Amino acid sequence: MGLSRFVRFCYRSAAYCGSVVLVTGAVITAFFIYDATTYKHDPSNEEITVSELALHPKRGGPKNLPIASVLVDDDDLEGRDMQTQKYKPKLVILGTGWGSVALLKGLNPDDYHITVVSPSNYFLFTPMLPSATVGTLELRSLVEPIRRIITRVKGHFLKAQAEDVDFSEKLVEVSALGPNGEEQHFYLPYDKLVIGVGSVTNPHGVKGLENCHFLKDVRDARKIRNTVMRNLETACLPTTSDEERKRLLSFVISGGGPTGVEFAAELFDMLNEDLCNYFPKILRSEISVHVIQSRGHILNTYDEALSRYAEARFAHDHVDVLTNSRVKEVQPDKILFTQKDEETGKIVTKELPMGFCLWSTGVSQPEFCKKLAKKLDGQKNRHALETDSHLRLIGAPLGDVYAIGDCSTVQNNVSDHIVTFLRTLAWERGKDPQQMEISYKDWRSVAKRVKQRFPQASDHLRRLDRLFEQYDKDKSGKLDFGELHELLHQIDSKLTSLPATAQRAHQQGQYLARKLNKIAQAAPGMRLNEIDYGDLDEAVYKAFEYKHLGSLAYIGNAAVFDINGLNFSGGLLAVYLWRSVYFAQSVSFRTRVLMAMDWTKRALFGRDMMNY
Amino acid sequence: MGLSRFVRFCYRSAAYCGSVVLVTGAVITAFFIYDATTYKHDPSNEEITVSELALHPKRGGPKNLPIASVLVDDDDLEGRDMQTQKYKPKLVILGTGWGSVALLKGLNPDDYHITVVSPSNYFLFTPMLPSATVGTLELRSLVEPIRRIITRVKGHFLKAQAEDVDFSEKLVEVSALGPNGEEQHFYLPYDKLVIGVGSVTNPHGVKGLENCHFLKDVRDARKIRNTVMRNLETACLPTTSDEERKRLLSFVISGGGPTGVEFAAELFDMLNEDLCNYFPKILRSEISVHVIQSRGHILNTYDEALSRYAEARFAHDHVDVLTNSRVKEVQPDKILFTQKDEETGKIVTKELPMGFCLWSTGVSQPEFCKKLAKKLDGQKNRHALETDSHLRLIGAPLGDVYAIGDCSTVQNNVSDHIVTFLRTLAWERGKDPQQMEISYKDWRSVAKRVKQRFPQASDHLRRLDRLFEQYDKDKSGKLDFGELHELLHQIDSKLTSLPATAQRAHQQGQYLARKLNKIAQAAPGMRLNEIDYGDLDEAVYKAFEYKHLGSLAYIGNAAVFDINGLNFSGGLLAVYLWRSVYFAQSVSFRTRVLMAMDWTKRALFGRDMMNY
Repeated sequence: MGLSRFVRFCYRSAAYCGSVVLVTGAVITAFFIYDATTYKHDPSNEEITVSELALHPKRGGPKNLPIASVLVDDDDLEGRDMQTQKYKPKLVILGTGWGSVALLKGLNPDDYHITVVSPSNYFLFTPMLPSATVGTLELRSLVEPIRRIITRVKGHFLKAQAEDVDFSEKLVEVSALGPNGEEQHFYLPYDKLVIGVGSVTNPHGVKGLENCHFLKDVRDARKIRNTVMRNLETACLPTTSDEERKRLLSFVISGGGPTGVEFAAELFDMLNEDLCNYFPKILRSEISVHVIQSRGHILNTYDEALSRYAEARFAHDHVDVLTNSRVKEVQPDKILFTQKDEETGKIVTKELPMGFCLWSTGVSQPEFCKKLAKKLDGQKNRHALETDSHLRLIGAPLGDVYAIGDCSTVQNNVSDHIVTFLRTLAWERGKDPQQMEISYKDWRSVAKRVKQRFPQASDHLRRLDRLFEQYDKDKSGKLDFGELHELLHQIDSKLTSLPATAQRAHQQGQYLARKLNKIAQAAPGMRLNEIDYGDLDEAVYKAFEYKHLGSLAYIGNAAVFDINGLNFSGGLLAVYLWRSVYFAQSVSFRTRVLMAMDWTKRALFGRDMMNY
Repeated sequence: MGLSRFVRFCYRSAAYCGSVVLVTGAVITAFFIYDATTYKHDPSNEEITVSELALHPKRGGPKNLPIASVLVDDDDLEGRDMQTQKYKPKLVILGTGWGSVALLKGLNPDDYHITVVSPSNYFLFTPMLPSATVGTLELRSLVEPIRRIITRVKGHFLKAQAEDVDFSEKLVEVSALGPNGEEQHFYLPYDKLVIGVGSVTNPHGVKGLENCHFLKDVRDARKIRNTVMRNLETACLPTTSDEERKRLLSFVISGGGPTGVEFAAELFDMLNEDLCNYFPKILRSEISVHVIQSRGHILNTYDEALSRYAEARFAHDHVDVLTNSRVKEVQPDKILFTQKDEETGKIVTKELPMGFCLWSTGVSQPEFCKKLAKKLDGQKNRHALETDSHLRLIGAPLGDVYAIGDCSTVQNNVSDHIVTFLRTLAWERGKDPQQMEISYKDWRSVAKRVKQRFPQASDHLRRLDRLFEQYDKDKSGKLDFGELHELLHQIDSKLTSLPATAQRAHQQGQYLARKLNKIAQAAPGMRLNEIDYGDLDEAVYKAFEYKHLGSLAYIGNAAVFDINGLNFSGGLLAVYLWRSVYFAQSVSFRTRVLMAMDWTKRALFGRDMMNY
């Protein structure tokens, strides 16, 4: 009996092992069979038709440049069937950042003839860029080819740079390097134009920025990695003096915002976890990481408790945080900055020898946007292109041009629109809006219109009765024009401009996609009924409202979250949560797989200590 | 009964699914727990001792440069316990290629104080480099940090370049970029020196090579990828004329060896499999790939049947193979070459417009090797450093300096050593070697010595009786000195120099590791017994013998193998076999995992069509 039970146990174990081996074998075989189908053995030999106009574009426009009204792939068939799009309204999207990609992912496939123009042919998952500088993640895992993204909407891509827009002839002037490296300009016609060109680094007028690194781009991340590795290698040489070694290993980050803080954290992780295993120990003991922040705290846009947590974490990790400090000048081997003593208020100039400096202190406007702002009426903001709350570029023909993401800002001029708000009421009563007296009932109807037009103001329009009482200074039970203007002006002053974050750009892209889909649906009916376009945007869809979902930051084996006023900070579990958020937000299945693979690689093999 | 069977079935299925879920969950949890242990939370604060001599090296040597006799990590303890190595004989290895890495992987951990000097801090898996140019594999999967490799032998690494060797004072002169980018020179003392600095591209005196790409390095592969992508993007622009588009999409490969052929194959794969999905169809129809080969066939070092198979495959893929053609000049937009008509023998000059040219036509000697060869007696080869069959550099003090890999060649001068071979016989008989007559018995003993000293000659010394008869011209039953010399000279002429391949370098590295291990074991005993070093190499280990294991090449969804005269060529199965060979030869577990991941990625997502 005992024997038979043992035999049965052996039999079952064998059967179990056997089935595991079989299943694994089957999976591997299936993968190889699948893999074998992905190779294309015969070069295709289909007939290709290309329109004559695509090969020899006509010239025209104010500068008499070639006009790309037909593109070389407009007539492509089979697989990429582009012909169906050929006569659709032309939607031109400038840029391949968060806004543009959210827009591309939200658009219905068959409504527009879409052309994306950008100097980079990939989308970059910017929040994870600091991780790529030290090899925690690979650069490849953070980028997604834009041509893969536009395939769904049968879009076109031109690797080129927007130079100017002719709003009356609806032409974008575009420049690109030609076959022999010479700059060539041409026009791209549009029916709808979306500007999402992003921002450039803000030099803040500091001298010697050529001695700094930046972190906006894949190339920047690669350069940083090479410099960090080069400094470590040079520090090992017998010809490097002790003083020089300390300088080479002094890493300075100018700017205590999320990018600067996350880079400092990743750099520290790499130095702490991987350096000691492969480099002389003297390097670890001579390394210093410094964060120079102009405000009183790092991560100053976050809740104060989180700033303090991050500062405590950095103190524990010996990352030197210099607050109330402003960089004056960056020299090749040192950085000069002024520091304000918090107690005495005295300003002293200090210097810090350094072997590496990252400049991550805010953004400013690209040349292209400055050029457009100068041309257009009503553009007063020096830092970004102003749009109305429907994201339409102020000053451009209504409904033609939109601006999204970092290059844009939504105007918060509630009081300027007072006449618009009062027009309906005035029309009903046959009065001049400026002469009207507004009852509490009227005020409720005005407030509703304000909320519709400026969703961002909703928060400040909750207690309508109190506001009414407060601004009805003569207690007449009515507001006159002046009193209402004052009320709206106060609301204006409470509205802050939207943050220049991936989150905002993403929401704007999604919003615009929904609206453009609705416009495409509505347009044929309108044309039939001979309805003038008018304010089509407002007719088909609500105004843009930004919903802040929270901020998060990685601070070196710990992470902080600021989600709608709820704060959360902690160690490894928070790090896993931080990763999950970005994992979920990642642009494609491909990048998710690559990111998961990278994290696994780091766990198994550490970061790669080499510059290749 | 039926019901109960159904219930049992349900129960079993549920139990089975449940256990699968549990096991998967457990594996994931286990991984996360493991992952959590890989983060280091507290910066280490150990005491570090560094010798004063490491921080301030003494000056000396012929040029009065700093001498790095102690390195900054010689006293490191804990984890990297380097102190045990401090007083071991100093082994300096120049280069981080196939030979050096095979040597590092074969050495016993505790015998030498090892310092590796190279401008690149990684080992590159060169045979797979063509795959990385188009994104089939990632560059990262082909490189292994050298610091990871030297950890096992507690080695040191200096990112620097060898400039010269002082053989009498046993100093290598090394140059490196200092902390401020200035070139600094210093000496590195050695007891044993291994030269494995590889080779540089051979310009063959052709004009305009600045218009070409090369494929020796990671940077080269990245540049190629960027140029290919840039050409594709430029070809999509409306300002690019049809003629210019055809030129941009004309890819020329100069050199029909394995590198050139594999690059052509990979390029074709990418264009055939991925291009059509994302780029306008006109690109695919206007692309051309050309291989210019000076010989009559591509892959001319392989068996002729394989060359023909590869040519047939290329013909099927519309890859244009131009044989008997020599490049005269490379201009920015075209390539000029002469072609010999095989029938008439007439030479005509042709030109080919091109947008990309890869130069992969053999290798030549680095400057460092030329400098050494000039200094040393007995170095006559213009293409490589000559070594004896124990891989010792000819002309350098015996047993001090070895040369391996592409930068070296093993002398095949059997006849020059005739006196050495005869010396023992002559000594036994008290005669002058040159006056001796050699009987068949003597000849057998001489042949044995020849085989020992020149293992490569063994193949030609199989039928000793026939050789004896053949060269015993006067049929005296004895060979005189002249006859024997003639015999050995004939053997010389049959010996070909070893191929400049990864395979040869790898075998030389392995061989040298075994020998250096034996020398380290033998040396203490010898020192005790006051035995002069003498020909210690010969005493402890046999001469180097190259065993050709075969050649293989990827030729575009097909592969060819030439394994010890056995030929094999075929489609996908051969490709999988080709991958298996390289998978097995890969340098570490890490690179194997990465390569497997890359092949999976290609199957799932295709190649990435972007230049980042």
